[in-house]
Amino acid sequence: MEHNHQTVHHRTTMSKEQLTNRLKRIEGQVRGVQKMVEEDRYCVDILTQISAINAAMKKVSLQLLEDHTKHCVADAIKEGEGDASIEELMSVFERFTKA
Amino acid sequence: MEHNHQTVHHRTTMSKEQLTNRLKRIEGQVRGVQKMVEEDRYCVDILTQISAINAAMKKVSLQLLEDHTKHCVADAIKEGEGDASIEELMSVFERFTKA
Amino acid sequence: MEHNHQTVHHRTTMSKEQLTNRLKRIEGQVRGVQKMVEEDRYCVDILTQISAINAAMKKVSLQLLEDHTKHCVADAIKEGEGDASIEELMSVFERFTKA
Amino acid sequence: MEHNHQTVHHRTTMSKEQLTNRLKRIEGQVRGVQKMVEEDRYCVDILTQISAINAAMKKVSLQLLEDHTKHCVADAIKEGEGDASIEELMSVFERFTKA
Repeated sequence: MEHNHQTVHHRTTMSKEQLTNRLKRIEGQVRGVQKMVEEDRYCVDILTQISAINAAMKKVSLQLLEDHTKHCVADAIKEGEGDASIEELMSVFERFTKA
Repeated sequence: MEHNHQTVHHRTTMSKEQLTNRLKRIEGQVRGVQKMVEEDRYCVDILTQISAINAAMKKVSLQLLEDHTKHCVADAIKEGEGDASIEELMSVFERFTKA
Repeated sequence: MEHNHQTVHHRTTMSKEQLTNRLKRIEGQVRGVQKMVEEDRYCVDILTQISAINAAMKKVSLQLLEDHTKHCVADAIKEGEGDASIEELMSVFERFTKA
Repeated sequence: MEHNHQTVHHRTTMSKEQLTNRLKRIEGQVRGVQKMVEEDRYCVDILTQISAINAAMKKVSLQLLEDHTKHCVADAIKEGEGDASIEELMSVFERFTKA
């Protein structure tokens, strides 16, 4: 199911705003970790910050995944083309339990 | 083992540069995902980018962890205070298998 | 969506056999790890065996999850009750990225 | 650091008993999941049981890892051969964040 450069239209303005705000906060946190490295901060303190970034990134992923399943996957199922879309969903799921 | 605001001195300039470069690339990738959301890109394409960020962040964590174990934990062991430092290491490890 | 003690009817004999065979192999691997502990085997060798068990268990989970999504979730979507079933799927997904 | 068939002598009887009991419980849980499959139990109920097995297996891994670090890795560090042992520890850690 090649989708490169395809766009979707199901994201509400509110949902996009929420995603973008979360990503902006994560961007700031990554800069914060850079600063901690430059300031020779204790390793475990830096690693604690990175766990917080990982947790925040996971929330973004879950929001995207739920949105995707409720719209793209659900539409494919209603149109009788669910299997390919579900297999794509499973490969995303598998990748997220690896990273 | 409270270490807030404590600094370490074992990171070489090269190691710090490597960490900072990796973090700068991750920062750029996070901005890239913001752009994909604004451009209504296909959900799975965005999620693929996020897995790449997670993998890159994990490399940073592994580098920090190895550095920490070879210096802070090893020094504590040599000074006969290994247990507390090892238990701290285990709690970092547990957190990273959760995030 | 309370489902305790509810049964499903979508699993084919072949799919059930595959699941049961995989689980029997995992059961044998767990007994193998017990033996390694009793024989005082090197820690990393035991941990390597446990990673193999985790990977095998993940395959079982992915098979169940794909089966579930293609049947229970897809049916709920077709009957217009997709949201609750998708939210349940997301909570399973979140739990699996935690364990 | 090839260690196949090497044995260790640092595990106390109590620690071995704790590991073996945990593994026996996990073995029983795996048999329980087999039964759920045979009884056509609801997929999410089975997946919930599998998450419990994953969590129990993780406890066994953490116990082994802490034991290993406090003895094998600590001894290698005291004998001036810490780096190879720490790199082995990091590869275990990396594998556990993948499974």
